[in-house]
Amino acid sequence: MVSEGEAFCPGHVTAFFEVVDDPDPRKKGSRGAGLCLSLGVRTVARVREDSRPSLDVIVNGKRQKADVTESVARKILRDRGYEAKILSESPLPVSQGFGVSAAAALSTAMALDDALGLGMPRDELIAIAHETEVECGTGLGDVVPASLGGMDLRLEPGAPAHADVRKIPVEADLLLAVLGPEIPTRSVLRDSTKIAAINRAGASCVDAFSNGPSLERLFELGARFAEETGLASKVVLEVIRASRMFGRATMAMLGNSVFATGNREQLATLYLKFGTLQRCEVDNEGVRVL
Amino acid sequence: MVSEGEAFCPGHVTAFFEVVDDPDPRKKGSRGAGLCLSLGVRTVARVREDSRPSLDVIVNGKRQKADVTESVARKILRDRGYEAKILSESPLPVSQGFGVSAAAALSTAMALDDALGLGMPRDELIAIAHETEVECGTGLGDVVPASLGGMDLRLEPGAPAHADVRKIPVEADLLLAVLGPEIPTRSVLRDSTKIAAINRAGASCVDAFSNGPSLERLFELGARFAEETGLASKVVLEVIRASRMFGRATMAMLGNSVFATGNREQLATLYLKFGTLQRCEVDNEGVRVL
Repeated sequence: MVSEGEAFCPGHVTAFFEVVDDPDPRKKGSRGAGLCLSLGVRTVARVREDSRPSLDVIVNGKRQKADVTESVARKILRDRGYEAKILSESPLPVSQGFGVSAAAALSTAMALDDALGLGMPRDELIAIAHETEVECGTGLGDVVPASLGGMDLRLEPGAPAHADVRKIPVEADLLLAVLGPEIPTRSVLRDSTKIAAINRAGASCVDAFSNGPSLERLFELGARFAEETGLASKVVLEVIRASRMFGRATMAMLGNSVFATGNREQLATLYLKFGTLQRCEVDNEGVRVL
Repeated sequence: MVSEGEAFCPGHVTAFFEVVDDPDPRKKGSRGAGLCLSLGVRTVARVREDSRPSLDVIVNGKRQKADVTESVARKILRDRGYEAKILSESPLPVSQGFGVSAAAALSTAMALDDALGLGMPRDELIAIAHETEVECGTGLGDVVPASLGGMDLRLEPGAPAHADVRKIPVEADLLLAVLGPEIPTRSVLRDSTKIAAINRAGASCVDAFSNGPSLERLFELGARFAEETGLASKVVLEVIRASRMFGRATMAMLGNSVFATGNREQLATLYLKFGTLQRCEVDNEGVRVL
């Protein structure tokens, strides 16, 4: 008998953050703030009982290596004898700061739990996805906000039992613009000089934001963070500045990309000079089984 | 000693085509017409003499399986003892009809020939790339036009010694819009019912176009081809029709995507409702060593 589960998880952009290290991956993570995207990852998990268990991950129609997704699936499948297929689809590019690995991990956890009829607690599925992102070095703080939706203020890092994350529902039309080559999150998170600069700027942004979180403030502090940390390329900084004529933009951490809101036609015309463009809204629902 | 070669190959979109089968991959290919894109693939080949030859392919910063590129590289490296690294970068998405596999194959052939100092004839490098695309089933007619640049009318298929391709230089600003999930070229080219419909419509488009090739005509015949063959999704057809208010659009074969020209702001606003957007121009130079 074949059974299926399906889940959608929003993508997530981070405007600024601070790395909080811990030997326990459920406690490790980031403080910071960002937005959930109406574009994300839709995953179908298809399982069949079988004495020779197997796991296939197919992303956008192609069989590929997807470390985080595979590892999450193995933790949920354990030694249950299943032939499992994970089929994920996303219009978002990877390694551009849109939280695709987190959304893939979390939608996989939810879809697989549903397909297997396990009924695991939602917080445990979220914790598994967070822990795996941290172990794989692909992200630190996308999973928990993506589970909630809206704009997030992440006051304490980690998986649900440890995290302190405030969800602030907001309505906004967004533009996502990719302005340069991919940045593997792993490469930045291994660089201690970069981490020091990130943590100096990040801590002060989190403090400032927690005094009065608003969409306006998110963009303002994000732009400051992008500049102070040296994470933004010249093109990204130029685009952030030029966007002020038509709205607000800030860098999607850690991508060669920005997210923006404002006069969509004028911003689109500006961004098309530099790269690839997508439109979406804020997702205020968070991850869900479909 | 390490030596390097670098090449750029434009992406390529096909508006309409007809499959011409042949047991010889240098004679097999397509008749049709399309445009070369100023966005494409830039490849650096880095080689070092070594008794234990190896080949690594890194695409957009990640080590990955890239059948066509790997196979082209092996044909050029042969049993010469080299440690070779192929580093390709492209802002274009794969499997969306933008000729990325062809551009990767051809830029790899040119870059590797340059790195090794082989001085192989340009037509032979193009033939190797064409033949490999055909063998891998990833494309039929992008390589030769991408070698030339401009707008192409492909009267006879195959590699340079067999092909009859006319290059028509044109100036145009283009928008590329991705409107749905990837279409692996292989899956369409294996479906004989689809091939029959493609060949009926394609042959008449090629005839009509050869009577007076122009950019206007390319879009007009492309839109007819997309509709008659049933290759276009509902969304693609809707977008092609709606584009007539602001310019012209047609489907990029074989992608869930369109290319368009006209009032860029208005077209961009329309396309952003449906998907991902990029801007480029026509490339009139074709593949080149950098």
